[in-house]
Amino acid sequence: MLTLQTNICHLLGIEYPIIQAGMAGGPATPELAAAVSEAGGLGTLGAAYLAPDALREAITAIKSATSKPFAVNIFVSKEKGDFTRLVEVQRALAPFRSELNIEEPEISSSADWSRQQFDICVKMSVPVISTAFGLLDEAQVQAAKSAGIKIIAMATTVEEAKLAEQSGADAVVAQGSEAGGHRGTFSLDDHPDGAQIGTISLVPQIVDAVRIPVIAAGGIADGRGLIAALALGAEAGQIGTRFLIAEEAGTHTAYQQRIIDSTEEQTVITKSFSGRPARGIRNRFITEFEKTGTKPLPFPSHNTVTRDIRTAAAKQNNSEFMSLWAGQSLRLVNDKMPAAQIMQEIIQNAQSILKG
Amino acid sequence: MLTLQTNICHLLGIEYPIIQAGMAGGPATPELAAAVSEAGGLGTLGAAYLAPDALREAITAIKSATSKPFAVNIFVSKEKGDFTRLVEVQRALAPFRSELNIEEPEISSSADWSRQQFDICVKMSVPVISTAFGLLDEAQVQAAKSAGIKIIAMATTVEEAKLAEQSGADAVVAQGSEAGGHRGTFSLDDHPDGAQIGTISLVPQIVDAVRIPVIAAGGIADGRGLIAALALGAEAGQIGTRFLIAEEAGTHTAYQQRIIDSTEEQTVITKSFSGRPARGIRNRFITEFEKTGTKPLPFPSHNTVTRDIRTAAAKQNNSEFMSLWAGQSLRLVNDKMPAAQIMQEIIQNAQSILKG
Repeated sequence: MLTLQTNICHLLGIEYPIIQAGMAGGPATPELAAAVSEAGGLGTLGAAYLAPDALREAITAIKSATSKPFAVNIFVSKEKGDFTRLVEVQRALAPFRSELNIEEPEISSSADWSRQQFDICVKMSVPVISTAFGLLDEAQVQAAKSAGIKIIAMATTVEEAKLAEQSGADAVVAQGSEAGGHRGTFSLDDHPDGAQIGTISLVPQIVDAVRIPVIAAGGIADGRGLIAALALGAEAGQIGTRFLIAEEAGTHTAYQQRIIDSTEEQTVITKSFSGRPARGIRNRFITEFEKTGTKPLPFPSHNTVTRDIRTAAAKQNNSEFMSLWAGQSLRLVNDKMPAAQIMQEIIQNAQSILKG
Repeated sequence: MLTLQTNICHLLGIEYPIIQAGMAGGPATPELAAAVSEAGGLGTLGAAYLAPDALREAITAIKSATSKPFAVNIFVSKEKGDFTRLVEVQRALAPFRSELNIEEPEISSSADWSRQQFDICVKMSVPVISTAFGLLDEAQVQAAKSAGIKIIAMATTVEEAKLAEQSGADAVVAQGSEAGGHRGTFSLDDHPDGAQIGTISLVPQIVDAVRIPVIAAGGIADGRGLIAALALGAEAGQIGTRFLIAEEAGTHTAYQQRIIDSTEEQTVITKSFSGRPARGIRNRFITEFEKTGTKPLPFPSHNTVTRDIRTAAAKQNNSEFMSLWAGQSLRLVNDKMPAAQIMQEIIQNAQSILKG
């Protein structure tokens, strides 16, 4: 019997089986996380690129805005980055800087705050830590469990989901190929372009392989997708793109307009922005960087190297040189509204499918 | 309210909203089509590569085995093929022929039976004609309608689905990226590798854009996938891979074993076999042909050129050089059984999800 009251609601202390994706780099603000949690879902802070002080401030802000559970999403990648081919890549990026009228910055390393971010989450007793790009190590899992923190890990294949369960995760996100933003794949040796299994295939195969609850991600943007996820055996749906145009999101206005204007045909999976495969709306940066034939630096180095371009493009309202992460359900994402209203629409739509 | 008794059941005269995919080239035999139709679904003859006489025989065989509705699936591609680069491609194929111990055959053209196949279907009053790679023209649609034949067209984007509806199709298959076999894409100028929108994204976006019933395809292999499809707004699910190992299927035994043994990670979309993007289990042919860097000939020429290799490989039980078309839900496809039992399992699974 399909129902919105799944076990994971009890596990996480939420009212509805809806998890807002941890869209790092701006969109998933403390305000958005708090609004989604207040509306009965699990709001998520996109903390991956936050420096320690900024992370502490953001967690404090969520706690002062809601007493309900929320998640903090961090990257736990084992990738080391590599600047060996920096000169070649900077040469390929020069035309973008020239068009934006900015100078090439000095770069020699990428910040790696992952362990500090985790420690801050434990110290501040956030209700849920969700991870992508890898798994917490044994000591971290122990520390989280001792602090009463639930762990959600992201997987893009059945094998990754099994590893997530073995690592001690309380739930696993099955990220289908439709999802916007970075592929969560951590078996990158087997899947250099990210594993790209569609949600309707991935979810039931993971459900059959693990005992922990499965959260479906990728392509879910309304109540239809949510009920489909539950039918596939998931206990919740994770939704990203639709919350990109929530009023509380930190998404750049030009980026939001592209989300509203684009269709299902317009996204691609690219490494052009970060060195890691990620799905976004095709724009000039992707097309022109790929045309140079230059191999991106490994993640996170390439992300560091393109940052000044993305930042300048944002300041100049130039969506052609920004990373426009988005999933494939773009025709379902049209109206800016408060997160609470998005939640309400999804829930009412889902309930009407169940009740007829 | 979710139910298995959707409008399309009435439209097509079937009991359950399950359509067996028209897997051409051997698997989708008259026996399979008749067995699925007898079990209450819509069986489909994979007629695309059948010469006129063989098609007539096959239709007669289905009619003598069942009085229930069935479909005949044909290709209606506008692609012309081109043998200009034949010598270069044959050079890349030489190592495969050498290993199989066969001679390079004389080739100068591809058979194009599409219009004859259509005319035979009309003359023999098949209940349903389903098409891929393009749309029937106005005269064909008129001829089919006059004969009381229902038309199902395949689409891989919202725009293609709108064109299908405009062409006069009675229903449209929304083929998600998870699907095995050829991408049905006919907007190949925009999508040279085939449009690859996941089922959970594609279906609701097409449902919102057309008034004719939508059939979800791609990744559906059990009752969970079927109910997910209905939740997304589809009126039926089309199932291919699971029927590849039905006892009535004409699938080669070595191919069936690969279906049973493989996982969700092992398929790729490739043009190596036919010149048209298609999803199958990665084997030596795909890997080694792609490694030569040789661009395949356009469809259907490339399909014609690789045929002797695939035929010889089948005779030699060599699944490394056969085309192993398969979708991404391979872990859900494990047991050989009669098609009626596959139908029964899917229906019971679906009913148990609905009733709890």
